[in-house]
Parts: sequence; C-alpha cells; structure tokens
Amino acid sequence: MHRKLAVFALLVAAPLAAPAVAQDWTKSKWGPADEIGAANYITPELVVKAAQLVKTGKTYALGIETNSKTPAYPPRGFKITIVQPGQAGTPGLGPSKTTYNDDIIDGWVGVGSQIDGLGHIGVEYVYYNGNKLADFADASGLKKLGAEKIPPIVARGVLLDMAAHFGTDIVKEGTAFNTKEIEEVAKKQGIEIRQGDVVLFHTGWIGLIGKDDKRYNAGEPGLGVDGAKYLASKGVVAVGADTWGLEAVPFETKNIFEVHQILLPMNGTYILENMNTGPLAADKAYEFLFVLGVPKITGAVQGIINPIAIR
Amino acid sequence: MHRKLAVFALLVAAPLAAPAVAQDWTKSKWGPADEIGAANYITPELVVKAAQLVKTGKTYALGIETNSKTPAYPPRGFKITIVQPGQAGTPGLGPSKTTYNDDIIDGWVGVGSQIDGLGHIGVEYVYYNGNKLADFADASGLKKLGAEKIPPIVARGVLLDMAAHFGTDIVKEGTAFNTKEIEEVAKKQGIEIRQGDVVLFHTGWIGLIGKDDKRYNAGEPGLGVDGAKYLASKGVVAVGADTWGLEAVPFETKNIFEVHQILLPMNGTYILENMNTGPLAADKAYEFLFVLGVPKITGAVQGIINPIAIR
Amino acid sequence: MHRKLAVFALLVAAPLAAPAVAQDWTKSKWGPADEIGAANYITPELVVKAAQLVKTGKTYALGIETNSKTPAYPPRGFKITIVQPGQAGTPGLGPSKTTYNDDIIDGWVGVGSQIDGLGHIGVEYVYYNGNKLADFADASGLKKLGAEKIPPIVARGVLLDMAAHFGTDIVKEGTAFNTKEIEEVAKKQGIEIRQGDVVLFHTGWIGLIGKDDKRYNAGEPGLGVDGAKYLASKGVVAVGADTWGLEAVPFETKNIFEVHQILLPMNGTYILENMNTGPLAADKAYEFLFVLGVPKITGAVQGIINPIAIR
Amino acid sequence: MHRKLAVFALLVAAPLAAPAVAQDWTKSKWGPADEIGAANYITPELVVKAAQLVKTGKTYALGIETNSKTPAYPPRGFKITIVQPGQAGTPGLGPSKTTYNDDIIDGWVGVGSQIDGLGHIGVEYVYYNGNKLADFADASGLKKLGAEKIPPIVARGVLLDMAAHFGTDIVKEGTAFNTKEIEEVAKKQGIEIRQGDVVLFHTGWIGLIGKDDKRYNAGEPGLGVDGAKYLASKGVVAVGADTWGLEAVPFETKNIFEVHQILLPMNGTYILENMNTGPLAADKAYEFLFVLGVPKITGAVQGIINPIAIR
Repeated sequence: MHRKLAVFALLVAAPLAAPAVAQDWTKSKWGPADEIGAANYITPELVVKAAQLVKTGKTYALGIETNSKTPAYPPRGFKITIVQPGQAGTPGLGPSKTTYNDDIIDGWVGVGSQIDGLGHIGVEYVYYNGNKLADFADASGLKKLGAEKIPPIVARGVLLDMAAHFGTDIVKEGTAFNTKEIEEVAKKQGIEIRQGDVVLFHTGWIGLIGKDDKRYNAGEPGLGVDGAKYLASKGVVAVGADTWGLEAVPFETKNIFEVHQILLPMNGTYILENMNTGPLAADKAYEFLFVLGVPKITGAVQGIINPIAIR
Repeated sequence: MHRKLAVFALLVAAPLAAPAVAQDWTKSKWGPADEIGAANYITPELVVKAAQLVKTGKTYALGIETNSKTPAYPPRGFKITIVQPGQAGTPGLGPSKTTYNDDIIDGWVGVGSQIDGLGHIGVEYVYYNGNKLADFADASGLKKLGAEKIPPIVARGVLLDMAAHFGTDIVKEGTAFNTKEIEEVAKKQGIEIRQGDVVLFHTGWIGLIGKDDKRYNAGEPGLGVDGAKYLASKGVVAVGADTWGLEAVPFETKNIFEVHQILLPMNGTYILENMNTGPLAADKAYEFLFVLGVPKITGAVQGIINPIAIR
Repeated sequence: MHRKLAVFALLVAAPLAAPAVAQDWTKSKWGPADEIGAANYITPELVVKAAQLVKTGKTYALGIETNSKTPAYPPRGFKITIVQPGQAGTPGLGPSKTTYNDDIIDGWVGVGSQIDGLGHIGVEYVYYNGNKLADFADASGLKKLGAEKIPPIVARGVLLDMAAHFGTDIVKEGTAFNTKEIEEVAKKQGIEIRQGDVVLFHTGWIGLIGKDDKRYNAGEPGLGVDGAKYLASKGVVAVGADTWGLEAVPFETKNIFEVHQILLPMNGTYILENMNTGPLAADKAYEFLFVLGVPKITGAVQGIINPIAIR
Repeated sequence: MHRKLAVFALLVAAPLAAPAVAQDWTKSKWGPADEIGAANYITPELVVKAAQLVKTGKTYALGIETNSKTPAYPPRGFKITIVQPGQAGTPGLGPSKTTYNDDIIDGWVGVGSQIDGLGHIGVEYVYYNGNKLADFADASGLKKLGAEKIPPIVARGVLLDMAAHFGTDIVKEGTAFNTKEIEEVAKKQGIEIRQGDVVLFHTGWIGLIGKDDKRYNAGEPGLGVDGAKYLASKGVVAVGADTWGLEAVPFETKNIFEVHQILLPMNGTYILENMNTGPLAADKAYEFLFVLGVPKITGAVQGIINPIAIR
C-alpha cells in the first residue's frame, strides 16, 4: 500500500508525466523544444523517495574500466597517453619543485561504460523529437540532443537479475528479455517497475571481457523489442545492462538495433551500456539510489560514465 | 546538538580515520599499498548521513560544458568530432533503417570540469604515498594512482560562498582563502566542516568564461597554503571551486601550485576544478549530498566529471 | 622541334596511355582493377626526360607549414603535441644520458599541403573506377584507392603563372581558369602541356594565409569546369595550385566541387592543394622535375605532402 | 677519374662544407643560428650531379605502409579514421551530388617510415647546436629544429647491401656496421661514400613486419658507434635503413641509442627509419637520385615520409 500511495502522490504531483501512447514518435510528448526525453519523468518527489532507499551506506561503481583493450563496437577505439609537459630536464617547477602528469585521450566515447544520448540512434536520419540529421549533427558537435543537455539522472534504480532467473552465471547470447521475462523476474524479486526508474539488467555477460572478448563482442543477451516497448510504456528514464549494447544480439528479427530505435528516438529513453551490475546482484540489491552526472561535453553523442548506486 | 552527536558517532565508528599529523608525507597513513588517499575517510555511516540531507529533491549538475573553446591550462586542448560510420549512401542499416551518430574525442582530460587524481601532482617526481614517477607513470597509463582506482565519492558536500563573503559577484584573482576566511564563512553560514566532507568554494570566477577567457586563465581566487593545510587536517575528501585550478593565482609565494602539492601528494586530498557552484550559492544550499563517479579510464591522471549535488 | 620529338617518342613508347574519350567514367580506361588513375601516365621515359630538366640544382619545397592555425575546410583541424616519454625525473636514459622528444598528431589529413587521393571525391557515393562507398570506405581505412597505392609521382612539372597573367599579386576569388586562360598562359610562357605532366597554377592566393584567413577560406581563384576537362584530356597526372581547393570558388555553376569530380572520380587525375608556388613564379621556373612520395598511410584518403621541384 | 674530379670540383665549390673535427658538439660548425645540420652539405652542384644518376627512369618508393598494426617503439601508436562529414542522409552535395571521404589521424609521427629531425635526440636535454630542451621544446611544437625547417633533401643516394654482405636474407639483430663493414661493402659494390650523400643500409630486417613483429621490435641489426662517427666524418646528409631505429640493438655498449646521439645532436645528421630498401637491393641499385620533401608540420620532431629513389 505504501507503494501505491507513493505512485498516486506522484501522479498527482506530475500529471503531465504520464506515459503517453506513442502515436507519432517524431513529436515528443514533452513538446517540440524538448531535448531530454524520459529525463522529464524525474521529479523532486521521486528524487527524495530514491534518496530514502539509502539504508546501509554501501556504494557501487557501475562503470567498468575503459582502456585500449576494452572490446568495442568497430571501428571504435580508445587510447590514453600520459605526459609531463615542460618538466623534462628540470627538478620540477619553482622552489617547491612541482611536477605533474597530464593525460590525453584519443578515443571514441562509445568505449567502455557509456550512456547513449538521444542523438545517438535514428530512423532513416530522423532522431528524437523529429530532429533530422542535417539539421543538428554538425561534425564539430551535435547542435541539439547533445550530452550537455542531459540533466542529473537521480532516480530509483532497479536491478533485474536475469542470470539468476536463467540459473546461469552468463546468460546466453541472443536471449531476449521481453514482457514475460521482465515481469517474472520483477515478481520473483518483489520489485515493481515504476515511472521514473532506471532499470538495469544483470546478465553476467560482462564477465567475458578479458576472457573471451571475441564472444563478448559478437553477441549478447538483452532486451527484446517487446520488452523495450514495455519498459518505455512504464515511463522508465533509462535502461541499462552489463552488456555492450543492451539489446539481444543476434537480433530477434532482421531489424538492426531496433530496441535502440524504440528507446532512444521513439521514446526518449536513455541506454546505459557496460554497467558493472555484478556486485549489486551478489548483494541482491534490487532497489537503490541511482546517481549519474553525464560529463557535459558540448555536442557529444554519448558519455563516458560511472554511475553510482547507493543503498 | 544533532550535529555533535553525528560527529561523535562517526569518530566512534571509524576511529582509524582520524586526521594524522603529517610527518613524512611520502608514507600514507593508510598504509604502503594505499592508492585512494582521503577517499578512505568515506564510511557507510557518512554515506547514510549524507543521503539524509536530501529533503527537497532538487539536483545540481556541478559540471560545466567542455568544448574546443573552453579555456584551459596550456597546452591542453579539446575537440570532439561527430561521425556516421558506414551510413553515407544508405537509408540506414537493415529494414528498420537504423542510423547513428558516434563521437571521437581528441583532447586532454584536464579541460573543463575535472577531478585531479592522486597521480597528478608531485614533489620532484615523488607522488602520493612515495610513488616515484619512473615507477608508475607509463606513457600508456599510470600503473598506480589511476582514475580507475577512485571509489565512488559519496559524501556530505559543503559550499562556502566566498563571493558573498567578499560582497562581490566575482572574487578578485589572487585572493587567498586561508583558515581565517574559511572559518569566518563557515560560521556565517552555520556550517561545520567535518571529516569526510567535500568542500566547494563559490567565487563567481567561472562567470568569466566566454566573457573574458584571458583573465579567467591568467589568475584566479582560491585556496591558500594555510587553508589547504587546514582543510587537509580536517580530513576532507576533496576540495573544489568554480575556478580552473582551485588555488589562489598569482600564488602567495614563489612556490608554484603548492596548494596542489599539499592536497594531492601530501594528504591524498582530491581536487575538483571548474565546478558550477553558482546555482548552489543562489539557493544558499550550503549542505547537500555530493555524488561523483569518476569515469574509470584505466591509468588516467584526471577525470572529466559532472558531480551531482542533491538536497 | 626537340619538344615535338619528345612527344612523338613518348606516344610511340606508351601507345596505350593516350587520353581516352570519357564515355562511362565509372569504368577506368586502365581496367577494372586500376586504383592509380592518371599515375598510369608516368613512364620511365618521361621520368628520364623530367630528370633532364635539372640544370641549376635549385630545389623548391612546394609544401607550406601546417599547424593548428592553418586555415582549413571545416570541420578539419590539426594539432601536434610534443612529449618526452619516460624521461621526466631522469638525466636521460643510460650512461650516455639519451633524451628525446616525440610528437603526436591529432588532426585531419586535409590541412595544409595535401594531395587528394582517388578515394576523396565521388558522385553520389560512386568513386573512381566505379567503386561504391559501401564497398571500400571502411571507417578504419579505405580498402581501395588508399594513399598507400599512389606510386611515386615523378614527372615534368609545369607552372602556369596566373597572377602574372592577370597582372596582380593575388588573383581574385571566383576567377576561373578555363581552356582559353590556360592556353594563353602556356603560350605566353612558351610551355606546352603534355601527357604525364603535373600542372601547377600560381595565383598568389596562398599569400592571404596569416593575413586574411577568413577571405582565404571563403573563396579562391582556380580551375574551371572547362579547364578541368581540358587538362584531363591532355592526360596530366595531377593538377595543383597555391589555394586550398584548386577550383574557382564561388563555383561557376550551382554544382559544388564539380572540378574535383571531373578530375578525381571521372579521370583519376590527382589534386594538389596549398602548393607553395611563389618561389617558382619568382624565378620564372615554368618547367622542372617534380617529385612526390605520398606518405603510405594505409587506407588514407589524402596525404600531407611536401613535393619537391628541382630545376 | 670522373668521380675524383667531381669530388674535387665539389670541394672547391663548397670549401666551407668540409667535415670538421667535432670538438664541442654543442656548437654547430654552421654557426649558432643553424637549424638544419648536415642538410648544409647539399649544394646545387651536388643536386645536378645526383639528377644525372637518373638513367632508366625507374622509381622506388622508400616508404612502407603505416597503419594501426605497424610495429612501433612504445608507447607510439597510429590510427586513421575515415569519415564522410555532412553527407549521411543526402544523395551528395548540390546538383552534381558531390560526396567525399576525409581522414583523421590520431597517431605518433614516429610510426612507419620516418625521418628523425634534429630536435629528436639529445644528450641530457641538450640538443643540436646546444639548444636546451626548456628553450625550444614547447608542448605545442618545437620552437627550433622543427620539421618545417628541413630543406628539400635532394642528394645522391647510396645503398649498402648488408644482407648480401653477410650472405643472408635478414641480418641478425645486434649486428653492428662499423668502418670495417661499411668500407668492405662499399668497395665490393664499387661505391664511394661522399659528402652530401644519403646512405641507406639494406638488412632485410623489415621483412619481419607482419611475420614476427615481436622480434622486429625487440632488436635490429644496424649502424655501430664507430660506423656512425665514420659516416658523420664523411659528411653524409642522412643515414637510413630498413629497420625501425637504424642502429644495432642490442646496443654495442651500455649506452642507449648512442648512434642516434652521434648523428643527430652531435653532427646534425638525419636518420631515416623503416626504409623499404628491398627493391633497390634486388636491382643492385647502389647509386640513385634521392628526393625527400619532409611534410612541413610546424614544430614537428619527426616526419612521416616516403622518399623517392630514382635511377
């Protein structure tokens, strides 16, 4: 009952945020100027409630390490170089002999733990809220839907332990999570998925990194087309997993990254990839405070992230 | 009284974390293997208490936008490039015509909002916990003290509004914040600085970006040498400001970046730069839950960050 | 007469290299496997003859300096960073104290002096010899028509001094060089344009760099559509100029970079941009040995070059 | 006799260019302002004579392919990315439907075929002509000794076939070429090494690339300390080989890259690495016209090159 009241209070407090029937996905229900999509579901009330989930003070870094060996979707790559500008041949700068290291990135944002912004995926060059590629995707940075627009994602986080559900350490590639599987796991865990949530799937797939990178990259278990529609209809802010691309690969149909299309352009729902869900699953931490500040790189499509779960 | 009790509980709960007298700074008080420094001050108890500061559900993105025009310490630069791999000449991939943007970074991590990791600053090539440059600073990534080691920084955040203190919108460059100023402002705001806190100074300096980048880069108000020792002795986890380099520039003495030396190598205290403190100051939000997950780029010196304040 | 004989000898020696009537430009006259286009016009006989043009031993670097300030076609940029890996804090490596600088490029190849390879320009995603974008333009490097395929370009170089022709230091933007202008200048200079030549236009335009970069980038005098067809029909190997894009801008018609299309995909004729022709013009050096080895970066579209003229 | 006369004429024509006894290497014999070192040996007379070596018209590209797999001295790396700016979702630009590929380099200059400029190697942070690191090595580019200063290297090229000398396809790593070996091979080949020459060693070592990259990178046959002094005393302009670092590795003594030190800072002699000498050796082409225009990247330490040999 407590939960029902909470949801009721929420709906009263934010009546405009009710999940809409997607009729013409190119028109956002949050208006023609909207650039943040499902982040609109976040309300102060939900933030307060999410913070109240913190009871043990245990924190979880959901980001994995990113480096030149991290398996990535081709042709993506990543490299960092450490330098010591202006110091060679000196004992350091000034009387206190200050020395320093700096670091340079040459890399694609979509390597390692990442959020897919709303400018990432489109349908025939049409992106979230009807934005056409030629109108916003400048080579020097997106003019709309850039990472700098993403507000703080502070929400109730929900973990769905699919590995436990399938009784395995690593769910098999191509396994699709649809309404049936999602509802079964939620029920088993005693968890209700609500508007404003961030939903994370634990599949164990990420455990392949460093052990079988080839298999890691070649497929993955994940969200199915029906499941994506289901979660979008629930009004979740973001969906993530411990996989490189969230959705089931091989794909369920001949469509390529259709789950991405349902979530990003059609519903404004963010995607979180390569999330380190293992420690949450080990602790059966199915509900938690989820906090993510996406680096505000102007016009970036994606973000290198390390969201924090707190419970 | 509530506060005093809280501090008492803390000290009882974590007796080993008391700030030590720095005798030989090259030996960390957390042992020879320690790589996280003042993050050791974070305890589950403090996390729970910090989460209890959330009362309104308002969130603040402390990161500023980073792009090719962001003023940065030379020779640092930053550039992002948006690409559409494999799509030119197609209506999109597969029957659902999936199109996508990707982004490539060519840039220095130390541009825009950043955390200085413990491998950033040294004294004559000796870094935190006595690590010598040649032993850990590989060109392909730090072998110790890298950004991937920084645990979730979930803490009580404290804002010290120095602009209000000095009765100005923008505190003058070179103005040093030392024990006297820090204590005066804390008292004025009714705020106590405690072990495990993240302390942020609001100076208004960041307001110069885009208006007078040259002045922005040429100096800054900030923490003084005495103030740095004071905060380190308090056991704070990190100190930040809405400036590019935290400390007062022109420097107080002929030493160059001595405040960095006191904080990073000598005390393991993290530094947060280019923090967008204005909205917190405007709301007189002097206490809040501070959450930062630093992107886990293996061996990185610094991190491109967007910490979230929640109250 | 000497010249006529030479041409005669050439035609006898290389009968297959006669310029063909372009019927279907997607089929190279050098066969379906051809990837080098007009470089096929280079023959040992022509190389020997070109070398015989060397009489004074004076050499000319045709490359200009490339750096972060070089005006470039958006969004192109260029940056070099100098580093001293592994040396900070040491007196150098080993007993002989070896120290070294290294350099890192973050930049677009098409900045500064460059050759446009045959994979640069297409007509609706069809490139030289009918190659379709999707079939050869991998994000990690062109699978066909890459810079590594370009053979040594050793040829008779011919300079056409258009600035002298128009009686100005800097020919006005939009001025198109077509058959009439080319033939007039060649006649005036006593120069015949022959199969296998590299033709360079001197316009003075490059003198704007550093003085009026905005004007430099906004337009340029250059080759016209008719002139491009004329030179291609002559069988020249490459055409260059002291401008950023060779062709007259504003364009002669509504077509965009049509001269590029005539030369690169339709005739396999290379384009040389930002050539430092001033010293050649000053010396009235209208004929010379031209030598260019394009850096063999696998799959590169263009090349950062510094061709050498010798006379 | 012809040769002797030529040398005599040369000495008369350029009396100042005689190889000097190196007394204080930090003072160039070409004066305190000199930045080009042994390139001073190049004279118009020598250029004319070198051009006269062209008899067959056969050309040789001395550069090898450079890409992300090219073995390189750590931490160097190389990556090129092909993009199609502004075209996705269009049939091309304008009525003529112009499409284009562009390319971005993220890489170290010292990968693949390269010239070491005079700012590359020093002795305890002192470089050619006494330039101290702190005085010229800005992070954004060398202020002296940069690649843009290197004049056209047009010279008589000489190949010394060490593989043939040692009767093997691939000379063993660590094999040092000193005065004895150099003179023996020169004599055997009927070749005299003269002032102003570019000397290339063929060792076959480069044949390991792609077959045994690990061995390729771990050592190499090459020039010895005595041989380096010998060639410098001869007044050669540059010395190269079909190896990654020219000199014998493992080194002859405990000194590290001492041959580099003798050539670059002490004598201003350029080094050419990863030269594709195989085709020259196969043709027993021991004398040829050597032409190299180093890309004029302002302040670069090295150059990505593809010198052309013509005979």
